[in-house]
Amino acid sequence: MDSFAIGVDLGGSNLRIGAYTVGGTSLGTQSFPTDASSGHTHVIDRMCEAIRNMHQQVAGKAKFAGVGIGSPGPLTLPDGVLHNPPNLPGWDGVELRREVSERLPWPIWVDSDANVAALAECRLGAGAEYGGDSLCMITLGTGVGGGIVLEGRVWHGLNGGAGEVGHGPLILDGPQCNCGARGCLELYASATAVVRRAGELGLVPVLNGRSEPAQGMLTAVHVAELATQGDTIARQAYEEAGYALGLGIANLINVLNLPLYTIGGGVSAAWDLFAPRMFETIEEFSYVYRMSQPASVDCFERGKTHVCRARLGPDAGLLGAAMLPFQSAE
Amino acid sequence: MDSFAIGVDLGGSNLRIGAYTVGGTSLGTQSFPTDASSGHTHVIDRMCEAIRNMHQQVAGKAKFAGVGIGSPGPLTLPDGVLHNPPNLPGWDGVELRREVSERLPWPIWVDSDANVAALAECRLGAGAEYGGDSLCMITLGTGVGGGIVLEGRVWHGLNGGAGEVGHGPLILDGPQCNCGARGCLELYASATAVVRRAGELGLVPVLNGRSEPAQGMLTAVHVAELATQGDTIARQAYEEAGYALGLGIANLINVLNLPLYTIGGGVSAAWDLFAPRMFETIEEFSYVYRMSQPASVDCFERGKTHVCRARLGPDAGLLGAAMLPFQSAE
Repeated sequence: MDSFAIGVDLGGSNLRIGAYTVGGTSLGTQSFPTDASSGHTHVIDRMCEAIRNMHQQVAGKAKFAGVGIGSPGPLTLPDGVLHNPPNLPGWDGVELRREVSERLPWPIWVDSDANVAALAECRLGAGAEYGGDSLCMITLGTGVGGGIVLEGRVWHGLNGGAGEVGHGPLILDGPQCNCGARGCLELYASATAVVRRAGELGLVPVLNGRSEPAQGMLTAVHVAELATQGDTIARQAYEEAGYALGLGIANLINVLNLPLYTIGGGVSAAWDLFAPRMFETIEEFSYVYRMSQPASVDCFERGKTHVCRARLGPDAGLLGAAMLPFQSAE
Repeated sequence: MDSFAIGVDLGGSNLRIGAYTVGGTSLGTQSFPTDASSGHTHVIDRMCEAIRNMHQQVAGKAKFAGVGIGSPGPLTLPDGVLHNPPNLPGWDGVELRREVSERLPWPIWVDSDANVAALAECRLGAGAEYGGDSLCMITLGTGVGGGIVLEGRVWHGLNGGAGEVGHGPLILDGPQCNCGARGCLELYASATAVVRRAGELGLVPVLNGRSEPAQGMLTAVHVAELATQGDTIARQAYEEAGYALGLGIANLINVLNLPLYTIGGGVSAAWDLFAPRMFETIEEFSYVYRMSQPASVDCFERGKTHVCRARLGPDAGLLGAAMLPFQSAE
């Protein structure tokens, strides 16, 4: 039997643990509420106890490669030190790798949730399907995260800041972002942004008229449903997301010239609503893309540039965390 | 004695050849007009003859690693096939690596002029001074070129299109670029752009009044001289270049998180005119930069993000071409 590793998806709401083989076969998973407000010591204690139990269940059947943890950011790498993580309030300065290493006798790797999702897509999702070992993954959730895998390994850069594709100057006459830039991708293509733009464009009165949820309750899924039914404002919110994604990906293609860009996260379910505008924009703004564009966006061609939906869904983070020990062993 | 390699800087006007040791010590250089209009066969014949002669002069003293050629782009890599290169008219479709390999018995590498300059700066210039093995170099000349070196090797991407930092959507309300994007870095920070912006802003009448050269003759050096003398329009043209560079570098930092970004080419001589605005803009737009900003931009600190002037000047292209065989041997 293959060797196995244990992955942890440390989310703001739920903590998931899974044992996987190098090929991504599940040997068991577990999930419980993170309860981040109980303090990091308590959460890490419970996490390590669950890892120990899972190791006991699986060990003996196969060689153990170690533990990988995907954490919300911002965090510096490879040490996994958290910096005011919005999804883990009160965890500023927590040295995640050190804390876990002190509790467990195995090798520990920590990476960001966006980076481990990219690693999973590269090894077991869209990247495996394409047959390549480099990609950029953009995760469209409450925010917009990104991860870059080059020749099979997560590219961290100097201190783990690489792949922050959700932030940076993109649409300069767009809204100010908390990150300091203006018109960031996150302000157009996150679930939050789609709902905000729909509201700004006037979707709320229409919804209220139909006794739909009030603005505070509106979700990107509702906006997608309305867009699918033909609502022009809802459609426009998704087209603007597609435009911003197209600009962002055009820049990434010109800088990195990767074979594959894959889009995951909740908003990616509305692919048909944003992808046509996204592809138009990439084609217009990136001559590197035009030089190596596939005949069809739906099938993989070697030597061409592909932009596609991520394949693994919400399990990408857990799977990718479990792939961290294998990445380092190669 | 160290082994040596021969580098070729194939420019639109001049062709330079140099033999160098792995440490960058010159063993002899030669230069002659490219005469690109005489056709690629003729130019490549003469180039290969000159390489053979130089090899004969140096061989015997040291082991020979091979020949590296830096060529104007666009070209696909690693095969070095030219695609309508504006600086080598009539050379569309020339397979540079194959053509040279058919004429010479040694291993041949071809790369773009911007990439080899980045490789030289990494191994022998700013990168060596910093002590790192990854950087992005931006070359401000007639156009704006870019090259990315990751862990000691040029990052080509899928087919050599990586590092095109001069093109891509940057300032969306800016002018349309031939590449398809709008407000590209090249439209603000190239020598051509600085002269154009100075003219648009009204510099020409002032110059004519002083019997300075007419607009067609104005160069970025003239604009820099006027700016240094306090001309507000000339200063503005360089400040706009600094703003665009700041936006572009902020994006690169958020995507790549490299330790070093170095700026070369003729316009970089006007560093004091554009750098203050550039640094302000990077700091404002890149939170990844703010997280790892050095205390002073003038001295290198490990673990920090540096943006500095390139060190090697106009020889970077020739030196970097000669480093290609060593890069591949490592």
